[in-house]
This record gives sequence, C-alpha cells and structure tokens, in this order.
Amino acid sequence: MSLEVKNLGLENSIFNHYIAEIRDSLVQKDRMRFRTNLNRMGQILGYEISKTLKYEEREVITPLGQAFVPVLKDFPVLTTVLRAGLPLHDGLLQVFDRSDNGFISAYRMHHKDNEFEIKVEYASCPSLYERTLILSDTMLATGNSMVLSFQTLIEEYGTPEHVHFVSVIGSSEGVEYLRKNVEIPATLWIGAIDEEMTAQSYIVPGLGDAGDLAFGQKD
Amino acid sequence: MSLEVKNLGLENSIFNHYIAEIRDSLVQKDRMRFRTNLNRMGQILGYEISKTLKYEEREVITPLGQAFVPVLKDFPVLTTVLRAGLPLHDGLLQVFDRSDNGFISAYRMHHKDNEFEIKVEYASCPSLYERTLILSDTMLATGNSMVLSFQTLIEEYGTPEHVHFVSVIGSSEGVEYLRKNVEIPATLWIGAIDEEMTAQSYIVPGLGDAGDLAFGQKD
Amino acid sequence: MSLEVKNLGLENSIFNHYIAEIRDSLVQKDRMRFRTNLNRMGQILGYEISKTLKYEEREVITPLGQAFVPVLKDFPVLTTVLRAGLPLHDGLLQVFDRSDNGFISAYRMHHKDNEFEIKVEYASCPSLYERTLILSDTMLATGNSMVLSFQTLIEEYGTPEHVHFVSVIGSSEGVEYLRKNVEIPATLWIGAIDEEMTAQSYIVPGLGDAGDLAFGQKD
Amino acid sequence: MSLEVKNLGLENSIFNHYIAEIRDSLVQKDRMRFRTNLNRMGQILGYEISKTLKYEEREVITPLGQAFVPVLKDFPVLTTVLRAGLPLHDGLLQVFDRSDNGFISAYRMHHKDNEFEIKVEYASCPSLYERTLILSDTMLATGNSMVLSFQTLIEEYGTPEHVHFVSVIGSSEGVEYLRKNVEIPATLWIGAIDEEMTAQSYIVPGLGDAGDLAFGQKD
Repeated sequence: MSLEVKNLGLENSIFNHYIAEIRDSLVQKDRMRFRTNLNRMGQILGYEISKTLKYEEREVITPLGQAFVPVLKDFPVLTTVLRAGLPLHDGLLQVFDRSDNGFISAYRMHHKDNEFEIKVEYASCPSLYERTLILSDTMLATGNSMVLSFQTLIEEYGTPEHVHFVSVIGSSEGVEYLRKNVEIPATLWIGAIDEEMTAQSYIVPGLGDAGDLAFGQKD
Repeated sequence: MSLEVKNLGLENSIFNHYIAEIRDSLVQKDRMRFRTNLNRMGQILGYEISKTLKYEEREVITPLGQAFVPVLKDFPVLTTVLRAGLPLHDGLLQVFDRSDNGFISAYRMHHKDNEFEIKVEYASCPSLYERTLILSDTMLATGNSMVLSFQTLIEEYGTPEHVHFVSVIGSSEGVEYLRKNVEIPATLWIGAIDEEMTAQSYIVPGLGDAGDLAFGQKD
Repeated sequence: MSLEVKNLGLENSIFNHYIAEIRDSLVQKDRMRFRTNLNRMGQILGYEISKTLKYEEREVITPLGQAFVPVLKDFPVLTTVLRAGLPLHDGLLQVFDRSDNGFISAYRMHHKDNEFEIKVEYASCPSLYERTLILSDTMLATGNSMVLSFQTLIEEYGTPEHVHFVSVIGSSEGVEYLRKNVEIPATLWIGAIDEEMTAQSYIVPGLGDAGDLAFGQKD
Repeated sequence: MSLEVKNLGLENSIFNHYIAEIRDSLVQKDRMRFRTNLNRMGQILGYEISKTLKYEEREVITPLGQAFVPVLKDFPVLTTVLRAGLPLHDGLLQVFDRSDNGFISAYRMHHKDNEFEIKVEYASCPSLYERTLILSDTMLATGNSMVLSFQTLIEEYGTPEHVHFVSVIGSSEGVEYLRKNVEIPATLWIGAIDEEMTAQSYIVPGLGDAGDLAFGQKD
C-alpha cells in the first residue's frame, strides 16, 4: 500500500521558522517556547490535514438570517505516542476540539550493545474501526516506535479507514520503514526529513531528544 | 491597483467548521468559544499569509549537528481595528509572536436617519514605511471602517510595501468598496462573502455584532 | 474614601517569580514570554479578586447525582487601559470568561519641557452602574492615566458599586495619587510598589515601557 | 505521618464556579470547556502550592535600574496520572513552566464481580530524591490509583522531600486512604470532598468519568 508523504517544509511558511527554532540549541533552553512551537506546529498540521477530510452542509441560524455552511462530517481520532507526542497532540486537539483521543506509550529498551527494541506498555484508545486516525509522534527516527504503536492500535482497536501519521522531523530511513510497514491508506505529514542518524538512532541534524526538551530528562 | 481576494471558505477545511460555529446563534451563547474560534481563525489566516512572505536561509546549531533552515526575513506589522478585531489579532500574534503591533479604533457614529459615519479616534502603530502590514477587523461590512483605518494608518505611519487585509466574514459590497479605495498592492484574506446587508449595515446572514459577541454589549 | 491596597508581592509565590522575569532586561527580549507573564499575572490577580466577590448556591445535576455548589453571583466588568493593559486583560478574561468588557485609551501627550498630560480618546464600555468594575493597567506610574480613565468611565457609564484597580508594578507616588482621587469603595491589587520615578515618569527600577515590551515601539 | 488537607472549596472563589461547571452534565457536553476548566483549576492549585515553596532573592537588571526580587529556589517536579490527569497537568505546567515532568499510568482492571484492581504500566519520571513532587490526578475516588502511583514513583525514582497531591474532586474514603498510606510529609490540595461512592467506585455526586469527559470514551 502506498504511503503519501506531505512534507510541509518544502513550501516556505512560518512552519519552517518554527522548525528553525526547535532545532536551535540556544532557543531550546526555553522549554515553554519549545512546547509552544510544537503546539503551533500541531495546529498547522491539523489544519492542513483538515483540508483532506469530509464535510457536509448544515443549516445554521444566525441572529440575522439563515446560512448553509460546510461542517466536518466526522472528527478524526487523535492518538499520540507518549511522552514526546503530547505537545503536538495539544495542538491537534486545539484544532479538532470535539475529537476522541487515544494515548499509547512506546519506548526504546536499550541493550548494552547500543541496540534497542521498542516496547508498547500503555494504550488507551477509542474504537478505530472505519474511522480516520491521526497518529502523532514528534520525531520519526527509525520508525519502529510509530509502526509498533500503529500495529498495536489496529490489533486492539480495529482498522481505521485512513491513517494520518504526524511528525515534525523524520529521517529518510524512518519514512522508508513506515512505507514498508503500513498496509492501509496512509498519509505522512511531516516538516523536515533529515538524511542521517547516530549509532543511537537519533536523527542528524535533528533536534536532540524531543521528550527531554519538552519535559526534562527522565531518570 | 488590483486587490487580490483569497477566500478561504471556497476550499473546505476546519476553517469552515469554525465559520459555522461563529454564525450559529446557539453556539454564540458561549463567549469564550466565540473568542476561541476567532483566535483559531486568526491563526489559520496568519499561517496562510505566511506562505506569501519572504524567507532567508539561516544556519542553526542543533545538539547533534548543523542545519540550514529558512526563517522569516521580516515579521509583518499586525494592526487591528478595536474592539472587535482583538480576538482575531490574538490569533495572528500567536503565529507571528515577534511582530510589532498596532491598534486603531474606528466606530460608527449613528445619525437619526440610520445613516452613520466612521470616526477614527485612537491610533497606536509602529512605522509602516516599506513594511508588510496585516490589518485585521473581524467583519468587513460596508468596508468604510477598514478603508478609513487604512488611510489613517498610511497618512500617519507611512506607506507599507504590501497590505494584507484580514476579515472573517465580509459583504460583496464591502469587498468592492475595498477594491476601489486601496491604492497599493493588497490582498484580502477572508472566510466568507455574504450577499446582503441590513439597513443598519449589518451583514446578512453574517453573525450579528462581533464585538458584542466577544466582549458584551457596550453602553 | 479609603483605598485598600493588596500587594501580592509581600507574600512569596510564583507571582514574584514572574515579576522578576518581566523586570529582567534579558528575559524581556522574548516578547511572547513577556506577554505570557502578564497574562499569568492577570490570572492570579483575577483569582485573588474572585475571593472577595459574592457567590450564591446553585443546584447542579451531575451524571451521578445532584450537588449544591456556589457560583459567582455576578461577573465583574473588565475594563483595561490600552494598549499596555491588553495582556493583563487577557489573563483576567481567562478567569472571568463570561464577563462584559470595556476598553479605554489614555496616553501621555508630551510637551517640550518633559511635562506631559494624559488624554483619553477612545472608550467602549458597558454600563457600570452599581456593578463591580475591574480596571486594569499594567503600570501605575504617576497614577494620572488610571485616575483619568476611571473618572471618564464613571462619568460616561455610571458609578460602580466597587472598583478593583489592577496593576503589576506601581510607584509609591502613583498609589498615593490614586488614594486621593478615588471617591468610591476601591481596592488596588498590585505586585510591587517601587519608590522612585524618572523625570519622564517611568517607574524605577520598574521594567521600562510595558506597551513597547509587549507590542513593540510605536512611531 | 500526617497528611495536611487543603480544600480550596471551603473558601469561595472562582474555583468553586469552575467546580460547578465541571460537575454540570449540560456544561460537560463541551469537552473543550471541560478541559479548559481543569486547566484553569490546575493553574489555581499550582499558584496556591507556590505559596508554600522556597524562594531566594536575586538581583535583576531592569532597563532603568536594579531590583532585588524573590525567585523560586527550585521548580517542583510535576507528575500526573494518565490519562485523566493531563488537563490538570497542563495547568500546573503553565504555572511552573521550567519544571521537570513525569507521567505514570494506572488503571482499573475490572473483574466480573464489580471488583477491580489498579495496575501501573507506564512510568516516565525524573529523579525525585529530596525534591518537591506535585502528583496530580483529576479525581481521588478510592485513592488506590494515587497511592499505587506514588508508591511506584518513590520505589523507582527516589523519595521526595515533600509531596503535594492534587485532585479536583475526592471522596472522604479516598482522603482517608491517602492519609493512611503516605509515609512522608504530604499535602493534599483539592476542590471538593464528596461523601459517597457507587458500587463501581465512582464519586457521588462527583462528575462522572473525568477521562471520558476530557478525551472521549475508550474502547
């Protein structure tokens, strides 16, 4: 199944300016601004996704008359990968304020040899069956975490009609991994695709660890 | 000079859903949601405008390397017409958080015969000379208020290189009036253009009085 | 008539931390943080004021039963002095989201000799008659601007039952001027009272020009 | 060890008004307002907690002089119980924007006989050793979830110097359970304490399921 890739960074907009800020190690010192930038990017990504959704005409009574206006047919389900995805999810939820929400945790369990495996522990989600799912994670590095989260979600909550993956920065390898491992109609919305990764699977130049930058280091 | 009109409502997006909410006299009972909707629309309009601005490449040092990313060359000046424009301005300022800002007040002085004239009283603004100006007012009814505000601004603060007018709902007559009275390169960004106006120059179907809906009736 | 002064800065809380940030010329470089700090202080001041307002019991039906809970009897009117008061007003409005709002502009018209007079130009406000008014301006320097705004408001919109003046930083002189010139039951809520003023009537150490710091210099 | 209980609902403030709104099954239909109310309550609770923290004087250079102002000595760690705690946590983080954050998931595993046990699955947290911890969960029903989360946290991340538990609505039984099971200096900050619980351990009158009301039902 083909994955459509929508890289917002290819067209200049204020989105690229925010990308510059979240990458910048000096600007990163202000965690509140870092989170605000992810929130703003979540709003922009949500708005761009909203252009692809279905609308239906509704009659609305204004104080001065009657209007026929298109409204969203169904709100998408917003599911995010903990913890780094939370500020991005906040932005998406600000756009789709009536959406149902899901949360899933996936983490890298490191082994001595710099290898790691992704573990899914926590999942709370509404039914996804035949719905539109927006699955967000701030970074798309190897893609393991996004794919494993997605596979867990469809196993436990049903197969959505369409999935929109949302990340701010990804690696070429992560995009390819996603392409190979998603079997339903899918779109990836992203702001930048970097070429390299470190031995520890951090994107280069990337921005570092998005979870740490938003919420502080964990023990 | 030609005015380019960008009507966001012609393409379906969540923006139209917000238009439906702000028009709806039942949803209007919640002032906080009314203001939030204007704020969200201000953010979307600001983002769409940002696609037309100029960017330049900057080198940014990330924790893991170096990246060349486009950043906004100059932040536009954000000026709004009081009081109704304030929630829209909040949204624009959330997008362009480093912008200089201006405020101008223009009001309808009513005469006995339902006629009225627009009076500009208060203006606080940075220099506009050769800059990009975003001038926002929630409604574009007759267009008198927007035009008079604009003329006052350029007289007192200099002529901008380009002006982006921003409104949520306008009337066809208001759009024409703007077209006839603006002499510099200009774009109008708007969400809906209604055909009619009442004898009191309220847009029909419109949404009523945006200032009252956001802030309560004034005495 | 006596003015009650509530200086939140006398008891340590995060409010003082925000005061430190808005005073700090390095932190001031980030306008978004400056505005956010004023917004947060507006919320705290609004909450503290809310402890002095009147409540009445209301029956509420929950999904699992019935509860009797105190709700605000009347929402106060929130009026702010343009333009510096706007971020503070945003915070107050976030607390009292159903309030009616007013805006008034008062500015210093400078003469050659460093003298200046305060001019009120624009006023939009609901009736204040027998209501509770919260009148906010970020700085209380000489007090002229607050007093003239207040006098204009009661002349044009009626005398409130009680007025709560809200400022973030004031001068001792400004507090005294307010005390001498307000004839109705009044409370001043403030975060710090500085001893001195410059020849240009800026508070020392103060924070500089709050309007410029939030919105950029005006021409 | 004694638990100090600070019930904000005993003194009237806008906090009680928000309590009324989140309990009200009609107002609950607007999920955005429900989340906003929890966010605002999180901010108020954070502010009240901030009055008990330690401050130290710092010299700050303003544009016009030098000031000595108290700043927060150490930011508390903000940990929340997923998913219901998230909107409350957002409010706390808005107050303490430089804090380190933790997330923990605990859920009720239901058995056929209406019995259930609390399971902790996911925990991500900085070191808590000798720090101040604010642990938030929207509802304090049986208290099992808060206590088990707390015990897991101190086992894995060290014993804090002080813990502030934060909930919006609790049951008397939950408060007692907490009192009996916490062995370090602790304060409970809460907005209302209800007397009863259903057989399924929902607080009565309470407000229903806070997670569902904020984020939609999970499958």
